[in-house]
Amino acid sequence: MSATPVPDPEAIEARLRHLAEYVDDDYQGWTRVVLSDPYRASRDWIRSAMREAGLEVRLDGAGNIVGRLPGRNAHLKPVMTGSHTDTVVSGGRFDGIVGVVGAIEVASLLRESGASLERDLYVVDFFGEEANRFGTSCLGSRAMVGGLTRSHLDLTDADGRKLGTDLEQFGVDPGAAVAQAWPEDSLHAYVELHVEQGPRLERGGTDIGVVTAITGITRVLATFTGRTDHAGTMPMADRQDALASAAAAVLAVEREGCGAPAGGVATVGRVDASPGIVSAVPGEARVWAELRSTDAGWLGQAHRNLVDQIGREADSRGVSAVLDWLNEGAPVPTSPTIRDHIARASEGRGLSWQAVPSGAGHDAAHLAALGPMGMIFVPSAAGRSHCPEEFTATEQINRGVQVLLDTLVSLDAETGALA
Amino acid sequence: MSATPVPDPEAIEARLRHLAEYVDDDYQGWTRVVLSDPYRASRDWIRSAMREAGLEVRLDGAGNIVGRLPGRNAHLKPVMTGSHTDTVVSGGRFDGIVGVVGAIEVASLLRESGASLERDLYVVDFFGEEANRFGTSCLGSRAMVGGLTRSHLDLTDADGRKLGTDLEQFGVDPGAAVAQAWPEDSLHAYVELHVEQGPRLERGGTDIGVVTAITGITRVLATFTGRTDHAGTMPMADRQDALASAAAAVLAVEREGCGAPAGGVATVGRVDASPGIVSAVPGEARVWAELRSTDAGWLGQAHRNLVDQIGREADSRGVSAVLDWLNEGAPVPTSPTIRDHIARASEGRGLSWQAVPSGAGHDAAHLAALGPMGMIFVPSAAGRSHCPEEFTATEQINRGVQVLLDTLVSLDAETGALA
Repeated sequence: MSATPVPDPEAIEARLRHLAEYVDDDYQGWTRVVLSDPYRASRDWIRSAMREAGLEVRLDGAGNIVGRLPGRNAHLKPVMTGSHTDTVVSGGRFDGIVGVVGAIEVASLLRESGASLERDLYVVDFFGEEANRFGTSCLGSRAMVGGLTRSHLDLTDADGRKLGTDLEQFGVDPGAAVAQAWPEDSLHAYVELHVEQGPRLERGGTDIGVVTAITGITRVLATFTGRTDHAGTMPMADRQDALASAAAAVLAVEREGCGAPAGGVATVGRVDASPGIVSAVPGEARVWAELRSTDAGWLGQAHRNLVDQIGREADSRGVSAVLDWLNEGAPVPTSPTIRDHIARASEGRGLSWQAVPSGAGHDAAHLAALGPMGMIFVPSAAGRSHCPEEFTATEQINRGVQVLLDTLVSLDAETGALA
Repeated sequence: MSATPVPDPEAIEARLRHLAEYVDDDYQGWTRVVLSDPYRASRDWIRSAMREAGLEVRLDGAGNIVGRLPGRNAHLKPVMTGSHTDTVVSGGRFDGIVGVVGAIEVASLLRESGASLERDLYVVDFFGEEANRFGTSCLGSRAMVGGLTRSHLDLTDADGRKLGTDLEQFGVDPGAAVAQAWPEDSLHAYVELHVEQGPRLERGGTDIGVVTAITGITRVLATFTGRTDHAGTMPMADRQDALASAAAAVLAVEREGCGAPAGGVATVGRVDASPGIVSAVPGEARVWAELRSTDAGWLGQAHRNLVDQIGREADSRGVSAVLDWLNEGAPVPTSPTIRDHIARASEGRGLSWQAVPSGAGHDAAHLAALGPMGMIFVPSAAGRSHCPEEFTATEQINRGVQVLLDTLVSLDAETGALA
């Protein structure tokens, strides 16, 4: 490629603004969850935006929107970039979206500049990345690497609806989704642009985050069974208070997170108690918690510590605790070669960069199964994410798109397999 | 009264069984909450059962079903007995119901035996005693003593419906309910038969509980406001975790209850967190708690301790805590004279008795505003109440009805004002 194309901040901002219109108005902020009507409508628009950028667009068996910019050398392994456009409930306008909009801008720039890559460039809007009501996430990227199984299709939501049934109703054939898998090592490189969703880059006054690893996530649903009693008449010493045991678990999880090595966190996002009235000692309670770290050793130790502490606190109250653990994924390191390309691309544009871990899960963690993987972060205002306050300025996104473009171009030129 | 009439356990059991048929089948156990269809239907049946027992029946302005057995001496202050027939959600077949069914049996016995009292005997099924979705309780007894106000009518449930509106729709004129008040000191005595709802009588192998006082109840809704953040990317030290603050409050309430003098308890019945997903640090959380004791001094001290501890725990997490306190009623001692009559009535029937506090609130606590008040407890199996497992054997209820009858007869004969 001869000249260095410059991304168009206005085009990027216009795409972000347009996408922000496809939302469920029943919630604060921006809500476009997988399988919803606003999501369906937004995806039609994404396809047309990809076409306008010069991409050949198809929908794969798992609902991923896959755009292709053909390269000069059809027998070389392709490069891929992308992210997702679904949101959490009451989420923001940037998480995932920046990576899709940025990838479309990259394709558009490559076409407009008359440059073409040696390799095919795939731009993907991955289907349903965020945690969904069926208790899973990353539907599209999981499927693309062959990780979506029939047992995923049987997952049910709170109303007893099956994921497979709802996929079919949305227009995604569950059989095709499960069968949808690219071969191992079929990608030359996968690079994803994303907002940091944490405060490190902003605090450091840094333009670009070079992601070192994507966090491992372990989730646990703790169910406490005690005995429902009248809150006025059952003496304290005779109670089997499930909610008090649950509260002790919340604080145990908090303590575990506070003792984690850098980047490790532990969170309880939800608690409930039954019967849930002020005049009854709760006989049942549940705690939904998760541990995250790029350090697999700590994840294992924290898991064991919590089994011990939560069990002991429940025992002391005559309450039984059942812990259902779900390993949502081990930590995934990024490719050292791609990290190097991202850092050099940043320097080439006069941008500052720093190495950062990713505390969030990403489609990239799954894509690592298909080849070397890297991620580019841009700053998040006050580190806020998964909330309406989520914000990244257009000029910061624009810098990320510059680095994404240059990284893809330089990776394209690497002839051997990447480390 | 010459002969000593004997209550009919089969008639009592038949009434209990019949009433247990009016329930909402959407819930486990027995559910007949105030303002519901099953409650409406059950009340028609209560009225006919009262009439069969020889009572003149009317519905007062507040929805109380009031039966009257005329005495020989119309200018004497009347005696009153009764309780309630509404239940909590997934409640039992005995709480409140035993007192209404027992009172009907007493009236029936008095009529069948040809005995008549000097005084009028009122048998009341008080409207909606249990805590309701508007956050109040004891609608009928509260109204009867002039304690139901226009501000109660404006209380709203979770869907924004007003108590006044729903009362009207149920057929209770809100204006009449608020205006419905008996004069102070208009009762010679009020005596209520009730299941203990706690384990003391069963443990002591005792037939009859002579209630010393009805607990005072202080409720608090604690609202914690922190900041919603991505659970993977916001470092532990930078969080403002509302749910962790709420969990610390749950344990503070538990500790306060464990340190209470005999009969004092503290309970958290419900907690929620928002947004309530496992991948977000909760920015908001709420805790519904209550303190109960017959010791007003401890209630005040526990209130102050919790303000201090809950505030400190929230502060340490950068979370704000707002505590809305609701004094549901100060402790209410029973009449020493009525206690004495109940104890003597028990001994007269060859039954064992012991003095017990009431940890539950009762219509009787309100009725104390109209004259001397007493309560008779019968044992609850394993102390369970407000749950489907609530149980008292018919023969135990029958003993309570014997004591209720004899107590009312002996109180009727007391010519002076009672202490």
